[in-house]
Amino acid sequence: MTELTEHVRDFARERDWEQFHTPKNLAMALAGEVGELLAEFQWLTPEQSAAVMTDADLGPRVRAEIGDVTIYLVRLADVLGIDLVQAAADKLADSGRRYTVEAAHGSVAKIVGDRPAGS
Amino acid sequence: MTELTEHVRDFARERDWEQFHTPKNLAMALAGEVGELLAEFQWLTPEQSAAVMTDADLGPRVRAEIGDVTIYLVRLADVLGIDLVQAAADKLADSGRRYTVEAAHGSVAKIVGDRPAGS
Amino acid sequence: MTELTEHVRDFARERDWEQFHTPKNLAMALAGEVGELLAEFQWLTPEQSAAVMTDADLGPRVRAEIGDVTIYLVRLADVLGIDLVQAAADKLADSGRRYTVEAAHGSVAKIVGDRPAGS
Amino acid sequence: MTELTEHVRDFARERDWEQFHTPKNLAMALAGEVGELLAEFQWLTPEQSAAVMTDADLGPRVRAEIGDVTIYLVRLADVLGIDLVQAAADKLADSGRRYTVEAAHGSVAKIVGDRPAGS
Repeated sequence: MTELTEHVRDFARERDWEQFHTPKNLAMALAGEVGELLAEFQWLTPEQSAAVMTDADLGPRVRAEIGDVTIYLVRLADVLGIDLVQAAADKLADSGRRYTVEAAHGSVAKIVGDRPAGS
Repeated sequence: MTELTEHVRDFARERDWEQFHTPKNLAMALAGEVGELLAEFQWLTPEQSAAVMTDADLGPRVRAEIGDVTIYLVRLADVLGIDLVQAAADKLADSGRRYTVEAAHGSVAKIVGDRPAGS
Repeated sequence: MTELTEHVRDFARERDWEQFHTPKNLAMALAGEVGELLAEFQWLTPEQSAAVMTDADLGPRVRAEIGDVTIYLVRLADVLGIDLVQAAADKLADSGRRYTVEAAHGSVAKIVGDRPAGS
Repeated sequence: MTELTEHVRDFARERDWEQFHTPKNLAMALAGEVGELLAEFQWLTPEQSAAVMTDADLGPRVRAEIGDVTIYLVRLADVLGIDLVQAAADKLADSGRRYTVEAAHGSVAKIVGDRPAGS
């Protein structure tokens, strides 16, 4: 991960792209790549989506999109000075306190109900 | 990263959430979290976005959103059996061939022009 | 639609929000609202999603999110000087030429295959 | 707008695409198109984004993406049985009560601060 972060940083610097890489722009680029990832899944049934990596055409495309998303996320975190893995671990610990195993067990209602109307 | 992947996997299993974690659903959840990240940046100037981590209110929120995005990306890659870091490294190597340092130097047109009209 | 466009424009002007409403910022705000819409659907089965409006809790939330998405889309089009309905009609005519009834009939492959790998 | 809705409905029916058009799938398709719209703006400065329609290359592309976004939004609302314009008008009235002209005047903090940390 550290190596990837440096690799992406070098990639941007060599091309003089640092001028474009504000956090705002990188968040947009990340969202654009996630949109392409969504497009691969949008018409698939749950079952088709679960088997997507066995498809000779879709599998490599999904992997490439996951790669793109990761590149921009790594770059965004680097520019912000955030340790990606630590930020995720902290958030997971926080979520563990909010969704205890007992209360959240198998409950989609709990998850769906997390966002108040009008938010 | 391996540890985080296992941590997220355990988190889902303990709550019996694996039934909801199809690649399609996780891609949507990832996009939803990226939407929340975008919302933090949407009204900021480029300069404000560059200084976002120095803001006592915004900084921790951006870090938490980055954490959420990472959690879902790690979980999605795990469910798909994709090595996140390797997928990104492969994609970066591919992009390096498509955007050579010479051709892409400082050029936003090159980047913007990557997507054909009507795509 | 014309009335809504003017209503949204007045809403922004009265609050002196025009300074924030660049096309770039509005595109981000639109994406943020779409992210909230996605979040309402992310864990639902296809069947649950089809029945979402009959749910006393989810139905009004989905309608409110659709409202938010529409507001930002209308505002973005207004700022860009684009006639939303005409732009959609033109694009639909274009898509009709690209996806003829004969070739596209019932085919998800055709739709999925529209995006080249690595795009 | 009514005409466009019917036009999009016929377009889907003629191609036997109704089977793919669950609200969940259409929300994803909408998000995918918004992702493409974001991609057009991601590297632009605020000033460049404000002038995007005067660009011979970018202008038509942005208009086409706006068209795509509108098509899927109209289709989604149709499938859900939601009146798009009315949903937006209702939400705008609701927002008017939450962001009064006095309190919200020129304030980005108010807007940014609308989402609680961890949401």
